[in-house]
Amino acid sequence: MQMGMVGGGVGAFIGAVHRMAAALDGEIDLVCGAFSRDAEACLTTGRELGLPEDRCYADFETMLSGEAARTNAMQCVSIVTPNHVHVPMADAAARAGYHVISDKPAGISLAEVEALAETLAETKTGYALTHTYLGYPMVWHAREIAARPEFGAVRKVIVNYTQGWLALPAEKSGNKQAAWRVDPALAGPAGALGDIGSHAHSLAEFIAHSRMNSLSARLRSHLPDRPLDDDGSIDFTLENGATGTLISSQICAGDENDLFIRVYGENASLEWRQMEPNTLIERRGSGETIVHRAGIDKPLSEEALSRCRLPSGHPEGYVEAFANLYRNTARALRDGANPIALGVPGIAEALRGMAFLEASITSSANDGAWTDV
Amino acid sequence: MQMGMVGGGVGAFIGAVHRMAAALDGEIDLVCGAFSRDAEACLTTGRELGLPEDRCYADFETMLSGEAARTNAMQCVSIVTPNHVHVPMADAAARAGYHVISDKPAGISLAEVEALAETLAETKTGYALTHTYLGYPMVWHAREIAARPEFGAVRKVIVNYTQGWLALPAEKSGNKQAAWRVDPALAGPAGALGDIGSHAHSLAEFIAHSRMNSLSARLRSHLPDRPLDDDGSIDFTLENGATGTLISSQICAGDENDLFIRVYGENASLEWRQMEPNTLIERRGSGETIVHRAGIDKPLSEEALSRCRLPSGHPEGYVEAFANLYRNTARALRDGANPIALGVPGIAEALRGMAFLEASITSSANDGAWTDV
Amino acid sequence: MQMGMVGGGVGAFIGAVHRMAAALDGEIDLVCGAFSRDAEACLTTGRELGLPEDRCYADFETMLSGEAARTNAMQCVSIVTPNHVHVPMADAAARAGYHVISDKPAGISLAEVEALAETLAETKTGYALTHTYLGYPMVWHAREIAARPEFGAVRKVIVNYTQGWLALPAEKSGNKQAAWRVDPALAGPAGALGDIGSHAHSLAEFIAHSRMNSLSARLRSHLPDRPLDDDGSIDFTLENGATGTLISSQICAGDENDLFIRVYGENASLEWRQMEPNTLIERRGSGETIVHRAGIDKPLSEEALSRCRLPSGHPEGYVEAFANLYRNTARALRDGANPIALGVPGIAEALRGMAFLEASITSSANDGAWTDV
Amino acid sequence: MQMGMVGGGVGAFIGAVHRMAAALDGEIDLVCGAFSRDAEACLTTGRELGLPEDRCYADFETMLSGEAARTNAMQCVSIVTPNHVHVPMADAAARAGYHVISDKPAGISLAEVEALAETLAETKTGYALTHTYLGYPMVWHAREIAARPEFGAVRKVIVNYTQGWLALPAEKSGNKQAAWRVDPALAGPAGALGDIGSHAHSLAEFIAHSRMNSLSARLRSHLPDRPLDDDGSIDFTLENGATGTLISSQICAGDENDLFIRVYGENASLEWRQMEPNTLIERRGSGETIVHRAGIDKPLSEEALSRCRLPSGHPEGYVEAFANLYRNTARALRDGANPIALGVPGIAEALRGMAFLEASITSSANDGAWTDV
Repeated sequence: MQMGMVGGGVGAFIGAVHRMAAALDGEIDLVCGAFSRDAEACLTTGRELGLPEDRCYADFETMLSGEAARTNAMQCVSIVTPNHVHVPMADAAARAGYHVISDKPAGISLAEVEALAETLAETKTGYALTHTYLGYPMVWHAREIAARPEFGAVRKVIVNYTQGWLALPAEKSGNKQAAWRVDPALAGPAGALGDIGSHAHSLAEFIAHSRMNSLSARLRSHLPDRPLDDDGSIDFTLENGATGTLISSQICAGDENDLFIRVYGENASLEWRQMEPNTLIERRGSGETIVHRAGIDKPLSEEALSRCRLPSGHPEGYVEAFANLYRNTARALRDGANPIALGVPGIAEALRGMAFLEASITSSANDGAWTDV
Repeated sequence: MQMGMVGGGVGAFIGAVHRMAAALDGEIDLVCGAFSRDAEACLTTGRELGLPEDRCYADFETMLSGEAARTNAMQCVSIVTPNHVHVPMADAAARAGYHVISDKPAGISLAEVEALAETLAETKTGYALTHTYLGYPMVWHAREIAARPEFGAVRKVIVNYTQGWLALPAEKSGNKQAAWRVDPALAGPAGALGDIGSHAHSLAEFIAHSRMNSLSARLRSHLPDRPLDDDGSIDFTLENGATGTLISSQICAGDENDLFIRVYGENASLEWRQMEPNTLIERRGSGETIVHRAGIDKPLSEEALSRCRLPSGHPEGYVEAFANLYRNTARALRDGANPIALGVPGIAEALRGMAFLEASITSSANDGAWTDV
Repeated sequence: MQMGMVGGGVGAFIGAVHRMAAALDGEIDLVCGAFSRDAEACLTTGRELGLPEDRCYADFETMLSGEAARTNAMQCVSIVTPNHVHVPMADAAARAGYHVISDKPAGISLAEVEALAETLAETKTGYALTHTYLGYPMVWHAREIAARPEFGAVRKVIVNYTQGWLALPAEKSGNKQAAWRVDPALAGPAGALGDIGSHAHSLAEFIAHSRMNSLSARLRSHLPDRPLDDDGSIDFTLENGATGTLISSQICAGDENDLFIRVYGENASLEWRQMEPNTLIERRGSGETIVHRAGIDKPLSEEALSRCRLPSGHPEGYVEAFANLYRNTARALRDGANPIALGVPGIAEALRGMAFLEASITSSANDGAWTDV
Repeated sequence: MQMGMVGGGVGAFIGAVHRMAAALDGEIDLVCGAFSRDAEACLTTGRELGLPEDRCYADFETMLSGEAARTNAMQCVSIVTPNHVHVPMADAAARAGYHVISDKPAGISLAEVEALAETLAETKTGYALTHTYLGYPMVWHAREIAARPEFGAVRKVIVNYTQGWLALPAEKSGNKQAAWRVDPALAGPAGALGDIGSHAHSLAEFIAHSRMNSLSARLRSHLPDRPLDDDGSIDFTLENGATGTLISSQICAGDENDLFIRVYGENASLEWRQMEPNTLIERRGSGETIVHRAGIDKPLSEEALSRCRLPSGHPEGYVEAFANLYRNTARALRDGANPIALGVPGIAEALRGMAFLEASITSSANDGAWTDV
């Protein structure tokens, strides 16, 4: 599949991840990009990537028109910009006939994502939302175990996503990643919650097989001049009757990328920790503890196995999880299907995520009042 | 020191722990007991412990009068009964001139513990509350690190205490430990929160050097006929401005005794997990991770070292932590001091704990409204 | 049971451990001691332990005669001295009619332990050897699993016991523990191998259900003036056909008390690490990993359960393992049986251990030639 | 860089790994291949990889001549076949002017690798040997710490590489990977030792900054009809005076890919475990334990940092380590340098590895006699 990219210029962390993920399996070619609004930076990035100069576009609009004029044009576009242009670009790309792969959160308001959903329905273009953690094999295995009758009904979910990189005001010392993430004009109304809480939300719903229907959120910023939340905790209920707690924070000094989830059923529980992603622990109320390990040689569910590349003990990580989303998107689109057919989050998850963010902000503004999602 | 015990008959888990803890260092002799209201069971327990029959008392009142009549009477009494008689017995013991070592929670209402505090002030008897986890050396080391200037102000606390043994209705299948803990007449108004949430609360305040001043609690029971909470989460603030989340649950199928705490300062954080208690992890925002390990040969704070018995790598555990409370209580009382002088929780912590439980119940009854502690 | 102790004065690590272990379960009373050849030090230790002055004996011989003269004499003696007097004292105690609990290694030569075995056979006194690690519940559970048909024949054993406390010449800076352990006159012909390698040997034979019958040892000292081995590795075969490697070292800077063992069968393997002793990992060739955890509430073998005191998640450690040896010794002797009846290592293990040490020294002197054990 | 590949057809594990590693950073294009001697299988593999049919060659010789006839020919060839043709192919490629990237071990005898070294010297073609584990950032960081004065001289190395996949006779049940690895005609004279022991050897020398100069090996096969070693242990000395033990086995049922190394200096030690490769533990004799973690945001040595792609907590794994070898090879060759200039193992390591294998086999045939390497 031929892919273009918007965003992801020099210094942007996530753009490079998307490119590695797309490249890993050799099924996607990056053929063009509008990597930066700074023409020189765009060209530099493109050159490093071995792209011809005429496919390093000055901006997104030029890329759409430029590619439209080619016979061998890109087929999909990967959007790795700050949040505020996710939807406008996705919408324009879809209308121009390109499939969309978008970083999360899908946008900056539920309303704009609802409008995008309509566009996608009209244009029948594919849409994939890169909730990285749903690319990990052991997350899929967890989802499978949680549905087993012997697990019992899910009762409780604890999901924690804490990082420390915003413990100090990094946004004031030239850290671009920090700067846009704390600026409502670029990031939208949610700070840490949009950046990482949205992952925690999607992971919880995914493994627990149920949607969050109500929540009580307390969001705050621990740093004085920071306009968006950098810390928060959310109590929630799922449609299946389970209750849960979600913690999302970027001021947890010393924490790296500490996403973990525990899902409790009546008879057993599951624990998965992103920083050691090839391990899934199942603890049974009867006293046994089973450690499920990733690997193509392991007794795992089919969905989990299809997301492993290596024998057990050869660690796979973040890029491989991300690559699973890209590979499955490419395969689905190649076969004329929506990526969701191959387990890639799509517009439905985009809508769920935005609803979660908006409900959280509303609840927090009402001092934690229970709010429907 | 000569000690009597009330409660702790055959089949009672915690009574045996108290006895091992008291015995470990050879500084306390168990000389009498009223182990059970069943006279035969009491005698059986006493015989197994090598006590003379005439010091195996039919009930607590008889023990007080029986010992009063002896020249070589007990000097303190350890109360390891269900909660509802903690305060009446402590009060009676204090009035009879005996020091008190009480299991937690201190009682079943703040009011009765306040009255007990007055009795203790009058009688000038010692009072120790066995918050086991404050006996662990690495908890003391954590407290010391959290106060260092380079740690920065404490901003956030996450404390989790989850167990799985009440995931099924154990109280209906003859489990005595379960039966009284879910019965408000015996346990008081708090279930899991009183049993284990109270430990989480004391640990958080202890390491963070600050008192909880407000909280928002959601308590619930996941099992239909269970009259007390078996699960809950609490958002809280500390006097020092930090915020936090406390999770307390006994329906977490598969979890053993999973108490862990994370305390975040501006520049670093600490993580301690009770199930591997000899390790304390300090993660610095600057990127270094330090693993502090227990052991008399380790560079630890004085308070931590005084609670280690063995060189590092020779694991000490729950009984040793408990024994630290007993040993320090015995040493303080021997020297005429209050146990609190040697770092043992006392009536102040008892009051704090009850205030926490009552505020939590009030908040939960008001759907999580912020409530002063 | 009434116990006397020889050795274990102020500053001696292991004497205090023996006392805690004996005290923990309240079934053994320490009634007298010859704690040090320094009369004042002996008296100080005795006073701290609450012993009457007339039962703090100036030396071992005086203790034997002094106790013989009492009606309420000690019944057994715990020997916690340097190695060179283990056998003479055990022999004298046995001849005087006292049961013996001896620290390991049993002596300084196979010949003297063989002679002791004859004495014990004549005198019919009990003899227990404190191979601490055989007191851990999960070691017993490992032994049980290794014998299951589905485990398959044992093929390979890797056992590692490394410490770092002799990485620098501690014996030259006043460390008493170090001083006698590197002195052949006190420690016997084996250094680290006698001190800790002997534990590794006993553990390997115990879990693998088979005796070492041949070995090839390379022992060395990494420090110039140290007359005994501080480091070594040993290849060995077991009678059941398995092969193995044993590493024993005290110059592993930074290592605490790092004893771990891996036992491989045809179809599965086991891993136990002393520094987290409540966990036993079973990895099956079919791909499943099972974590077995200690605790009275766990599905463990009977032998393992009988060595647990607490519910899972309440960590038990080194003292509790040691206490299992003491408790079972006391119970066996009380019932007129040999401690070995309750799974305590005895004179057979003492002989095995000495044969292992002598074979290792012989092999090492012959540049690692295969030597019968 | 334009790359061809020989070997790596359908079902070959390591060929796919090489391709992912080469693709990850977008700096290498796979342009042709002789993936299998089965023409159909070769074509199938090539098609899946998007190669034109005329660059899917029937055999290696045809690939060399076919590419020679093109203007836009491959620049290097990646050899991922069984061992016996590594050297003949590398030699032919070098003589034809192509750089070589070879899987390990370099060949099946030291003599043939010595001849290859001469060819390379003549042809001045680059040569890279894919010792995967030298691509991990924390291995480089370990090497850097081991050279610090405060670490002290290296005294002892323990390196363990155990797998379980040959615990049963997989070679008899159609497992191609197993079949060639136990066949001396294809694998050469070393079995597990060549397959994985060679990695352990290179890792030990790399981190310890010293060459193995003497060894005593015991190799064996635990399965009756297996002609090559599947298990062994090796005592060794390094030129710097350190001693060590290397364990290499593929019959360790349940073990995945368990490579770990411990390097002990006079004052501190290091532990790195491949299955959690982003963590390096440094234990200091003074009592502190430091956990070094991978990540571009971490205080690591320059060499380590240059091998990280992501912020800490976003796990990188086996493919990324492998990709570091490929990327650095491509960059070096692009700049006209030998890959070794960028830290990629080359012909010197190939010679060292073969010398190690031959010395081990000789020693083992002489019942573990010390043998020069």
